[in-house]
Amino acid sequence: MRRKVYVEGSRPDIRVPFAEVDLSNDDPAVRLYDTSGPGGDPEVGLPQLRAHWIEERGDTEAGPALGPATQGQTVRHARPGRRPTQLHYARQGTVTPEMEFAAIREGLAPEVVREEIAAGRAILPNNINHPESEPMLIGERFLVKINANIGTSAVSSSIAEEVDKLTWATRWGADTVMDLSTGKHIHATRENIMRNSAVPIGTVPLYQALEKVNGDPKALNWEVYRDTIIEQAEQGVDYMTVHAGVRLAYVPLAADRVTGIVSRGGSIMAAWCLAYHQENFLYTHFRELCEIFAEYDIAFSLGDGLRPGSIADANDAAQFAELDTLGELTHIAWEYDVQVMVEGPGHVPMHKIKENVDLQREKCAGAPFYTLGPLTTDVAPAYDHITSAIGAAMIGWWGTAMLCYVTPKEHLGLPNRDDVKAGVIAYKIAAHAADLAKGHPTAHEWDDALSKARFEFRWQDQFNLSLDPDTAREYHDETLPAEPAKTAHFCSMCGPKFCSMKISQELKEYAASGMAAKSAEFVDAGGRVYLPVAP
Amino acid sequence: MRRKVYVEGSRPDIRVPFAEVDLSNDDPAVRLYDTSGPGGDPEVGLPQLRAHWIEERGDTEAGPALGPATQGQTVRHARPGRRPTQLHYARQGTVTPEMEFAAIREGLAPEVVREEIAAGRAILPNNINHPESEPMLIGERFLVKINANIGTSAVSSSIAEEVDKLTWATRWGADTVMDLSTGKHIHATRENIMRNSAVPIGTVPLYQALEKVNGDPKALNWEVYRDTIIEQAEQGVDYMTVHAGVRLAYVPLAADRVTGIVSRGGSIMAAWCLAYHQENFLYTHFRELCEIFAEYDIAFSLGDGLRPGSIADANDAAQFAELDTLGELTHIAWEYDVQVMVEGPGHVPMHKIKENVDLQREKCAGAPFYTLGPLTTDVAPAYDHITSAIGAAMIGWWGTAMLCYVTPKEHLGLPNRDDVKAGVIAYKIAAHAADLAKGHPTAHEWDDALSKARFEFRWQDQFNLSLDPDTAREYHDETLPAEPAKTAHFCSMCGPKFCSMKISQELKEYAASGMAAKSAEFVDAGGRVYLPVAP
Repeated sequence: MRRKVYVEGSRPDIRVPFAEVDLSNDDPAVRLYDTSGPGGDPEVGLPQLRAHWIEERGDTEAGPALGPATQGQTVRHARPGRRPTQLHYARQGTVTPEMEFAAIREGLAPEVVREEIAAGRAILPNNINHPESEPMLIGERFLVKINANIGTSAVSSSIAEEVDKLTWATRWGADTVMDLSTGKHIHATRENIMRNSAVPIGTVPLYQALEKVNGDPKALNWEVYRDTIIEQAEQGVDYMTVHAGVRLAYVPLAADRVTGIVSRGGSIMAAWCLAYHQENFLYTHFRELCEIFAEYDIAFSLGDGLRPGSIADANDAAQFAELDTLGELTHIAWEYDVQVMVEGPGHVPMHKIKENVDLQREKCAGAPFYTLGPLTTDVAPAYDHITSAIGAAMIGWWGTAMLCYVTPKEHLGLPNRDDVKAGVIAYKIAAHAADLAKGHPTAHEWDDALSKARFEFRWQDQFNLSLDPDTAREYHDETLPAEPAKTAHFCSMCGPKFCSMKISQELKEYAASGMAAKSAEFVDAGGRVYLPVAP
Repeated sequence: MRRKVYVEGSRPDIRVPFAEVDLSNDDPAVRLYDTSGPGGDPEVGLPQLRAHWIEERGDTEAGPALGPATQGQTVRHARPGRRPTQLHYARQGTVTPEMEFAAIREGLAPEVVREEIAAGRAILPNNINHPESEPMLIGERFLVKINANIGTSAVSSSIAEEVDKLTWATRWGADTVMDLSTGKHIHATRENIMRNSAVPIGTVPLYQALEKVNGDPKALNWEVYRDTIIEQAEQGVDYMTVHAGVRLAYVPLAADRVTGIVSRGGSIMAAWCLAYHQENFLYTHFRELCEIFAEYDIAFSLGDGLRPGSIADANDAAQFAELDTLGELTHIAWEYDVQVMVEGPGHVPMHKIKENVDLQREKCAGAPFYTLGPLTTDVAPAYDHITSAIGAAMIGWWGTAMLCYVTPKEHLGLPNRDDVKAGVIAYKIAAHAADLAKGHPTAHEWDDALSKARFEFRWQDQFNLSLDPDTAREYHDETLPAEPAKTAHFCSMCGPKFCSMKISQELKEYAASGMAAKSAEFVDAGGRVYLPVAP
């Protein structure tokens, strides 16, 4: 069975959750990374794990919210002149409780975590107004993370549905969740998501800013955007996608593409730039953005508004021109002690994937890369969780720190609960395959435990160790439903009469005992290398 | 709509099928590789496309079957001293109708096909007793192919079910099918499959040989195996997996593995070797096998009986020792003008995949590689079509010629119809992604056509061009079921009010018309970059 266990850190309020799987033999229980959070009543919200850690640093204070939408609420702000960011503390040489918590999750020394954050190679997204979050790391040196997108749209879905998707996505392993709501009730949806999320929440503030100006890109301006940022900062959003790299001069580079600009944020900013023939206001106001982000410890997710939307457009001039600018912006954010990750594509054939990671690492000086897939072919709508899991696994192996999931509904419709699960599972596979390939020191232990259970016909252990125990069990039972089949030394592929696993177990004992001497004995004894077991 | 079209070759009886997708705009129809076959009544079997080509070569003759199971039937045998193999003809400089047919399918010159076969770098599996087959190529220079496994087992499934799975698998794109039946009715099942298959059929004759000796590996011998080969040869099996590389000396190398020997054929031969402490009889009789294979133009699929069954066992001494022997056997088969491909793993983490392809190419002098996945992690039973599609896409990119599919039921149960489809689709994705990455000259045309349809909101074209049009359409309709939504210039992700595709189409026109001059005009005109369209 799986159960939640806690590992205590250097102080009693650092208690790091793991999912522990007990085995039916004498092997030690297997401990798995756990994103499911403490659970709780959606009406009440989660316990505030980090409240005391935030408070005790003394660099923030509680006070009335500034934003009109949050009026009357009490939220936290930085004290004047203070930058309550993890990057700031890491650079000062301080290991925060957040860093220690995340280090225990990763099985690494807290000092390693501090160094990686200080160098900008990892981020620990955790807005001071999101005390419910369990600290986690996004960086090349750590386990590859995955993000799940949820959110209401103009066409369908409700707040309760989205909170349910959040809980569902983290149950299956989403490390962060982006709330991409559009349409009505964006603020209320986000409030519900924030208060019920133990994982960092990301947003694209431009979507809400656009709603505020009734969907007209040319009515956008810095003031509307800034107010939206502050509103979301006060709610606790941990990282925000900012499309500051879509510069006026780059827009024509996308004109001859097969699929133009496919990023929603990218096309909004491109429309604005063209309407006024002016430089992107997010680029010109970027330093003001940094000041705000520093006050709440919001991390930048520098958006790739010009990412390719088809195999034909991969790695083109528009995409790489924007990447140059994202590199420039990364360094500016670091001046303000603001944490940064950088978004990447999109649709890229396999042979063009590595160039993306290598260029991003170089241009952005090692800031974590956060990619959407990439999809390795365009021909399989309804299966883009698979076309993209292929690219995601590879790009994760080569250094991408977080993979944004793609569901089977990509390009076709809005993901429902089943789609969210399918996307998360496909991406957990990609991330774990990448961890193995990166040579993560302990990643293989999970595979080894499961393979050993498989070889020894410990069916229940095999199910319990599976990424998705429910479905593994269900598939097994479809062919051999009876309870005894769970302990049988065979499966439905070969049946009871002959089983290669069974044979090779006996070979193992046999070979170990000295081949030549035993050969005669084996034949004398009947030489049967299987046992007929009734199903 | 999709419809079947035929391209005629140099003579009227060479008619090569394609699936053609008409588009709703003025773009030319898109032609896709088609494996679905001519269709027919399962009771009657398919038309004998190749009968005349086989007959006119005059190197074979019809006569009574030799095998006891086929007694009374008329089958074809080689005339004395003749080797009616495609490799023989390719080496003689002859382009057979089969080669021309396959060349047209691949969009390449027939002479290229002949050269690749002559060099052993490609095979065209087509037993003289399987005239129903549509010629196809397996080789690094050609489109990456996929194989689907079907077959009855001791535990479940019927003949009719398996024939239905065959038709279903090829409808979705399986290039070859392996009949891995065990249990009762192996011969009859295979007969039904052969007569209804337009794709090459592969088998593992050892499974039937084992049934003949009541499942006791030590009761196996060369004579039983040889008779089984001849029985299957006379039925028309196009390629056979032969586990001749599991040499006695290699068996102990697998003893300390986490998952031992997971290949069924491998473990049977290992059991036999250990029982008698003798060299594998398939190895010692390999030249006799070659003589038989040459008489029917059966291709070897040199089995990797010592392939790894877990991440922990990948690329180990047992696996690579066997590969050395497979290289030796490849050269022996070529002495007899017998076509050869070589099987590969299995379970391999991403960073160890390329070594497999490189070593196989070197040891086997470019003979086509045919791999099972590989699975890139062990932790996701119920999703091994995905864990392995990742590895399959990569190994295909790096040179593997054919990918053996894995279904969601792998390790858990027997694949049903849905599982077969899920496996085929995942592998078509992997194979096509590999074709793109290999730089196949025309592979991208399919992606480009679909992406263009997507960008231009030609929903029906997008569905029709999809790998799985049914599911793409169904997913779209889940969110926006109404018929007008199929022509709407938006989709459910963003809704009618804002759409990035719509914006960037307008940007495209706008940018093309001269940015600076038009900026004022654009704003004057209202600057609306979307049109509100009611769903």
